[in-house]
Amino acid sequence: MHAIGVDIGGTKIAAGVVDDDGRIVAKTKRKSVGLSVDDLDAAVVDACRELASEHEIGAIGLAAPGFIGADQATVRFTPNLPWRDHPLRDRVLAGLGMDVPVVVENDANAAGWAEFRFGVARDVQDMLLLTVGTGLGGAVVTAGRLVLGAWGVAAEVGHMRVVPDGQLCGCGQNGCWEQYASGSALVREARAVAATDPARAAAILAHADGDADRIKGPYVTKAALAGDPLAIELLAEVGRWVGEGSATVAALLDPEMVVVGGGVAAAGDLLLLPAREAFGTHLSARGFRPEARIELAAMGNEAGIVGAADLARH
Amino acid sequence: MHAIGVDIGGTKIAAGVVDDDGRIVAKTKRKSVGLSVDDLDAAVVDACRELASEHEIGAIGLAAPGFIGADQATVRFTPNLPWRDHPLRDRVLAGLGMDVPVVVENDANAAGWAEFRFGVARDVQDMLLLTVGTGLGGAVVTAGRLVLGAWGVAAEVGHMRVVPDGQLCGCGQNGCWEQYASGSALVREARAVAATDPARAAAILAHADGDADRIKGPYVTKAALAGDPLAIELLAEVGRWVGEGSATVAALLDPEMVVVGGGVAAAGDLLLLPAREAFGTHLSARGFRPEARIELAAMGNEAGIVGAADLARH
Amino acid sequence: MHAIGVDIGGTKIAAGVVDDDGRIVAKTKRKSVGLSVDDLDAAVVDACRELASEHEIGAIGLAAPGFIGADQATVRFTPNLPWRDHPLRDRVLAGLGMDVPVVVENDANAAGWAEFRFGVARDVQDMLLLTVGTGLGGAVVTAGRLVLGAWGVAAEVGHMRVVPDGQLCGCGQNGCWEQYASGSALVREARAVAATDPARAAAILAHADGDADRIKGPYVTKAALAGDPLAIELLAEVGRWVGEGSATVAALLDPEMVVVGGGVAAAGDLLLLPAREAFGTHLSARGFRPEARIELAAMGNEAGIVGAADLARH
Amino acid sequence: MHAIGVDIGGTKIAAGVVDDDGRIVAKTKRKSVGLSVDDLDAAVVDACRELASEHEIGAIGLAAPGFIGADQATVRFTPNLPWRDHPLRDRVLAGLGMDVPVVVENDANAAGWAEFRFGVARDVQDMLLLTVGTGLGGAVVTAGRLVLGAWGVAAEVGHMRVVPDGQLCGCGQNGCWEQYASGSALVREARAVAATDPARAAAILAHADGDADRIKGPYVTKAALAGDPLAIELLAEVGRWVGEGSATVAALLDPEMVVVGGGVAAAGDLLLLPAREAFGTHLSARGFRPEARIELAAMGNEAGIVGAADLARH
Repeated sequence: MHAIGVDIGGTKIAAGVVDDDGRIVAKTKRKSVGLSVDDLDAAVVDACRELASEHEIGAIGLAAPGFIGADQATVRFTPNLPWRDHPLRDRVLAGLGMDVPVVVENDANAAGWAEFRFGVARDVQDMLLLTVGTGLGGAVVTAGRLVLGAWGVAAEVGHMRVVPDGQLCGCGQNGCWEQYASGSALVREARAVAATDPARAAAILAHADGDADRIKGPYVTKAALAGDPLAIELLAEVGRWVGEGSATVAALLDPEMVVVGGGVAAAGDLLLLPAREAFGTHLSARGFRPEARIELAAMGNEAGIVGAADLARH
Repeated sequence: MHAIGVDIGGTKIAAGVVDDDGRIVAKTKRKSVGLSVDDLDAAVVDACRELASEHEIGAIGLAAPGFIGADQATVRFTPNLPWRDHPLRDRVLAGLGMDVPVVVENDANAAGWAEFRFGVARDVQDMLLLTVGTGLGGAVVTAGRLVLGAWGVAAEVGHMRVVPDGQLCGCGQNGCWEQYASGSALVREARAVAATDPARAAAILAHADGDADRIKGPYVTKAALAGDPLAIELLAEVGRWVGEGSATVAALLDPEMVVVGGGVAAAGDLLLLPAREAFGTHLSARGFRPEARIELAAMGNEAGIVGAADLARH
Repeated sequence: MHAIGVDIGGTKIAAGVVDDDGRIVAKTKRKSVGLSVDDLDAAVVDACRELASEHEIGAIGLAAPGFIGADQATVRFTPNLPWRDHPLRDRVLAGLGMDVPVVVENDANAAGWAEFRFGVARDVQDMLLLTVGTGLGGAVVTAGRLVLGAWGVAAEVGHMRVVPDGQLCGCGQNGCWEQYASGSALVREARAVAATDPARAAAILAHADGDADRIKGPYVTKAALAGDPLAIELLAEVGRWVGEGSATVAALLDPEMVVVGGGVAAAGDLLLLPAREAFGTHLSARGFRPEARIELAAMGNEAGIVGAADLARH
Repeated sequence: MHAIGVDIGGTKIAAGVVDDDGRIVAKTKRKSVGLSVDDLDAAVVDACRELASEHEIGAIGLAAPGFIGADQATVRFTPNLPWRDHPLRDRVLAGLGMDVPVVVENDANAAGWAEFRFGVARDVQDMLLLTVGTGLGGAVVTAGRLVLGAWGVAAEVGHMRVVPDGQLCGCGQNGCWEQYASGSALVREARAVAATDPARAAAILAHADGDADRIKGPYVTKAALAGDPLAIELLAEVGRWVGEGSATVAALLDPEMVVVGGGVAAAGDLLLLPAREAFGTHLSARGFRPEARIELAAMGNEAGIVGAADLARH
């Protein structure tokens, strides 16, 4: 059965028709930035209609950032879109006038589901996905089921506290994991070194016109891949936190695999090797249990589309 | 259907026949301390045979401390009993000569399952159980299912790290949650005050013949219930860590309820109120989501028997 | 003997003639904001000349923020003024054409010296001054002598690390004391609550036109003095860190008194009582030693003038 | 002028005649273990009398562990000797019947003074001594003067807090520096690895008859010097804490040199190189100031004798 998956982001809406094997057989796009609530609904409907006009569709999955209700129908809160307690499923059903199951999902959950069903974790039943991007998102699968939580807000891994009295987080708490294992953390620490010791940060600053405030995550990665010692150290620090936090999750959930995706994962082994080492060192009861593998995500940018479509089918 | 539940501890084996409503209709006991592997198997078999001789039994659940294999048949490691990679299910089946399903479970999981099915959490689908005893054990239920993990060692909540470079734990790691939220933590801190400032700890020391080394957890609770300021503060500190750690778990699992059991829970509100306050203060996205309730466990010492029996039925 | 003290800040230069008892007998001012290096030198000279024209002067003390050389003659680095490795003493001597001893001092050291000589600490020989303002500055007196350090940069108390992996500091390090015990910390935490839970921060927001980004330290103090629970809690948190950090300093230096000044000290007991409690709780070897008193600074805004003048005399 | 220095430890009393250049020209010993208060006084007197019978003596310095009164005459508290608020100076003067200045000092202060006057720090004026033994002791010299503190208990460096909620210390506090930078920390962490992962600790266990509980600090050092990776890592961790804590002290005191002595310093560069690296990485305002050198102590076991004698002369 074919299903539509829609990945709704702050700048664009990417939609696709996904077959039973997780392959995208057709795609379309709409822009989302600056749209009103109604126009945003209309754009989602329009993208689905276009795809449905050429394919027989059995279900529709909509992935959005932020908090999704446990009913899998309502968007409670999205940081970069205007929806607030918004009945997205009903709006899309009404707009389409079709009679198919529509499911709303958190975008990290959708991406995690895609990895679990068709990606690097397709042979495991217990998985933690970490999306190391600007922030730190995630998804949890236990015994082959996606964990949604009592109110649909499970897997907010980025807001697990890893350092008491640590860095202030945008969520209002201190010491959240995403303050240490994210692109923002990478940039913050790179800028701090660049501001206080420019010589040491020269290779990174070279990508930012010499201006510490213009340093971005990909510049650090680029410098690291070219062998810059500071950039390598900064990425290793992020990797270390990925691993240490994963060891804490492993004590609770005992996953078989930790999948690492998101923009910072472009650093590959520069992120992964320190993550694995820290995970092993901090894993409780090491030696009495097999050790979870830490692997790069395999599904790329379209994981959200594929996962949303597949979740809608289930 | 009646099922037998067996709770195998370091000093005794407690077994019971449990009906569909979680009521124990018959009970028996054996001692376990000092037994060899074979004698321990025999004692379990003997207890089951006694109960099965007077009741029709549809299943047997065996709860043991430590690591249980994901096959729910093998005891991988128990801290206070001689079993190591021990095929407990097959031994018991062979010893009994009966043809019923036998399931082996971690004891904290069994207790958590009892609370979920028949206790304070019987109306929720997503639950975290914390057993605040000498150590800190736990169980996790998501969407009505017990989380076992890839290798059966999920819910080792006591070994989630809450303080980098924190207290050394018996597991070899530093800063494990059970070093802060347990009876051992309570005793450690009480002894430290008593050793360095005996006057301040006078009310607690009075229960320990004036000897700091003889302070035990229940003495602190007793002093606190009688109004001793230091004892109240020490319990509040443990409660604070219960709440702060629970907030971290809530970011990951979004439970509807946190159930607090174990010996330290005898302190009641002296533990619970500080836990609730700390949970609320540290909950991520507070205000955008309902807040999990933190409640005392309701099933008492027989939760292990009831939960083991009920898990075997499922 | 009369001496001139000059307190050179980022916006103005305040100068005065100080008598042997620490009283200011004449005062003058110049503005400093936006001045070039030469104009800044000239303004200092001009202020001194004005005062010297009407008083017989035996010494001149110049207090500036930032790093002062151990020679007490050179300004190595000032955050808000253009001096870099600047021979301030020689410039002022040349400009004045007078033959008097001129001494350059760090402004917090000057303020601390004033408290030690004429203020709340005039009867003690071992003192720690903490200036809890935007940042956290300080001064150390041991056995009646100001501690300058090998290179003149002692008493940078704000950059003692109190939390490993803690808040990023402008200095490039993490977890510096001034990230927890300062007006900036107060504002950061107040804004975080206001952004995520505006109702709870209503009394503070009322002073900031309802805009979290416009919250300033004095608004929190004002709300606290009017009884707002959140504001009181935020100040108590800063006070707690003042006390805990002071206990760490006390392990090293064993002061008889900790003097607390700076803008946040306007909160009085709302800051001081939590500081004292935390200090007592965290003081090592408590019970084997007398406990240092924690007191408010007594010299007010003119401490810099008085201290600079008096240091020049010694 | 010749002076006697006496280093009074828990097992023996070592005394010597010290010349103006810090050389020991005569030595003697008494045992101290198990002695009563009076016998201990008598043993100190006896040792001094023996030395004074053959040398003209101008002063006597007595170094003891624990808290010494700021009067430099009284032993307030010693952990391994029976003196409590004991007027040691007056007892020794009365016992000897001589008319010379007698001064009582803390033993780490005496050792630090010896390094400052005649050892590796003889050319600096601002120094921090760290004695990394079972615990972590120290001495502070600023501007050429030993810092005693208001009540004589300054330089208790081991009890500066470096980790909030960290390891419980024997002093009753949590997270004291000596819980991370000492031989006890080294042993604690080595034993933890050996207990949970014996294979990894094989080289260290080989020195301890395979028994984790019998691991001692020197065994770790021995294994590290022979190239064992775990032992090297454990020592580097202690070194890292020496360096990070020293950076915190440097923010406060700006020393020119950090001198590292005590039993663990036998590891030499295995301790020192990680200490230097961590110090540099965590030093505030690095780049705006010269960097303190971290060096091994040079005076050996007799530093206490030499320093006590020399302090008595001053």
